[in-house]
Amino acid sequence: MNFNKKLESIKTYEAGKPIELVVREFGIEAKDIVKLASNENPYGCSPKVKDAVVDIVSNMSLYPDDSMAKLKDALSKRFDVKDENLIIGSGSDQVIEFLMHAKADENSKILMNSVTFAMYEIYAKHVGANILRTESQEHNLDEFYKLYQDENPDIIFLCTPNNPTGDAIDSQKLFDFVSKVDNDTLVVIDGAYMEYAIAKDSAKEVSPKELIEKFENVIYLGTFSKAYGLGGMRVGYGISSVKIIKELYKLRPPFNITTLSLEAASIAVYDEEFVNRCITFSFDEMKRYEEFAKSKKVAIIESYTNFVTLCLNNNQNSKHLSTSLLEKGMIVRDLSGYGMNAIRVTVGTAKQNDRFFELTSELI
Amino acid sequence: MNFNKKLESIKTYEAGKPIELVVREFGIEAKDIVKLASNENPYGCSPKVKDAVVDIVSNMSLYPDDSMAKLKDALSKRFDVKDENLIIGSGSDQVIEFLMHAKADENSKILMNSVTFAMYEIYAKHVGANILRTESQEHNLDEFYKLYQDENPDIIFLCTPNNPTGDAIDSQKLFDFVSKVDNDTLVVIDGAYMEYAIAKDSAKEVSPKELIEKFENVIYLGTFSKAYGLGGMRVGYGISSVKIIKELYKLRPPFNITTLSLEAASIAVYDEEFVNRCITFSFDEMKRYEEFAKSKKVAIIESYTNFVTLCLNNNQNSKHLSTSLLEKGMIVRDLSGYGMNAIRVTVGTAKQNDRFFELTSELI
Repeated sequence: MNFNKKLESIKTYEAGKPIELVVREFGIEAKDIVKLASNENPYGCSPKVKDAVVDIVSNMSLYPDDSMAKLKDALSKRFDVKDENLIIGSGSDQVIEFLMHAKADENSKILMNSVTFAMYEIYAKHVGANILRTESQEHNLDEFYKLYQDENPDIIFLCTPNNPTGDAIDSQKLFDFVSKVDNDTLVVIDGAYMEYAIAKDSAKEVSPKELIEKFENVIYLGTFSKAYGLGGMRVGYGISSVKIIKELYKLRPPFNITTLSLEAASIAVYDEEFVNRCITFSFDEMKRYEEFAKSKKVAIIESYTNFVTLCLNNNQNSKHLSTSLLEKGMIVRDLSGYGMNAIRVTVGTAKQNDRFFELTSELI
Repeated sequence: MNFNKKLESIKTYEAGKPIELVVREFGIEAKDIVKLASNENPYGCSPKVKDAVVDIVSNMSLYPDDSMAKLKDALSKRFDVKDENLIIGSGSDQVIEFLMHAKADENSKILMNSVTFAMYEIYAKHVGANILRTESQEHNLDEFYKLYQDENPDIIFLCTPNNPTGDAIDSQKLFDFVSKVDNDTLVVIDGAYMEYAIAKDSAKEVSPKELIEKFENVIYLGTFSKAYGLGGMRVGYGISSVKIIKELYKLRPPFNITTLSLEAASIAVYDEEFVNRCITFSFDEMKRYEEFAKSKKVAIIESYTNFVTLCLNNNQNSKHLSTSLLEKGMIVRDLSGYGMNAIRVTVGTAKQNDRFFELTSELI
């Protein structure tokens, strides 16, 4: 049987290895495995969310409220935008999928940072679009602008804070850049880790409300998978002009968010205290990673997220290191696939981080 | 901003109205609303599933096991197929989406029954493909074959039992038809309600194992949304040749099933006793619909599912009837959008059905 040609160039996303897989592959007991590979919130989610989900567990048999009124209401209050400015995806990934199918095809060019979230490229390939990348490892908006002028891309992705490097763009610079982009180019601001950046440095805060008030061609992405501790529930969102949201809605499958996920996210929005407490814990623990890196003489990228990126020295090998850690039940993310001799490590609980320092000390 | 042209012809799927919407629109209290519009299992899901989900509620913060080993293991045992023959979707809808993007584009033709599941057309339009429909209301495989010969479609959808009419194709006829279709035409057998059909008449049973052993160009679709009572959890699956599954996998977004949904479906597979009990209840109650239709002198299509389709007389109007019922808090599905003067009613609990008979008696 023949399939569409564009499938030939699609490679599958390599997700962080789940604990279940390490149990199966290495025969290590689940309780002895520490996963610091997917930037989940190590403190879990708000207890209020758990209670709410348990309360409605009998509703598993009922299709979700496809208007998502409760969640949209919560998000519109949080961001001071209208319901019509919101679209909810099965993770912010799915919103990326919608916008790729709405705006791009095999004749399109998609501009993104040299090192950034892998799903931009994967979804671009789903529609057969062409990828353009900067050379700089950090988002260099001058380089973005030059490529924009030379290549006239259809979509530009800015990931701030950036995954998998952790650095963030100054908000003022970001707004200046977007103001120079023409109205038919869609600019995507991926703020999956924005809650962390805001807590660390207000100069990094990108306000979705301000973005969509100023620009018609911008969409802001957020997620419940990181700071809100709901990585397993698959809820993300896009905030944009009514015109863009309306087009993306045409591509949204009905019931794309489960009944329990809608409830979980709706409740999570209101427990900001929980989220802020987790973020404080995370940055406190991050200091220990900075000290560890210093003591081991490896570079660390200043991070505005809940993970750190350790850039190894020439006599060290990130693939080798992450494999050795995996065999001991410590799951981290090797970045060699991104062209970096580095590992990305989620800042875990104090105990998980102790274990990381202990095991890594033996290896580098 | 300009968007892809194909978006112009996409209409949004009209889902069954959720109870929340009727509360908001008509000011009726949730406890007074009966929803018989989405063919959910009125007995809910297995208590074992609820217990299992509550047990792992703390795992909401952890990304799902993207290998889906536990669920695939359960399904491969149930259907006596290999893991490699399985793909899991966010509802079987998502598997339809994958195969449309894998096999079709704006030059493709998609053949389906005159009246059938609306998502086939909607996903076909996502890729700009052309729709071909039979004239017969029931699946007429001779007509399908003639259209196949004349038009050479890329994909053929057979929905058995068919939604929204409830009739089912004889398995032997289905196998005969598929054996006459060339290997480059993908045949999709949508068995979303197959558990009901098997319980009623073994001649309607289509075995996925037999299908994929005989044919390389066929995919069988199943779901946990109906008999398994997990409509809110969004889990469906496709069973096909390794070659087809491998291509569809390229289009599967990572983590497309939530952590709690994976657990729910994995446990649900093993509680067949619960499912069979619900199906028996449902067919017992269906007899009351048959009697009701007879007493009211309206036609009923013989149903192999958990819903009945009442074909109204010329002096009755399905749109009017369903709206009148809605205002009284009874949600059913008007089929006028499918070109039928008919309503589709989920066979509910005895009490829900009592209420339907009571309210409808006042109106027809």
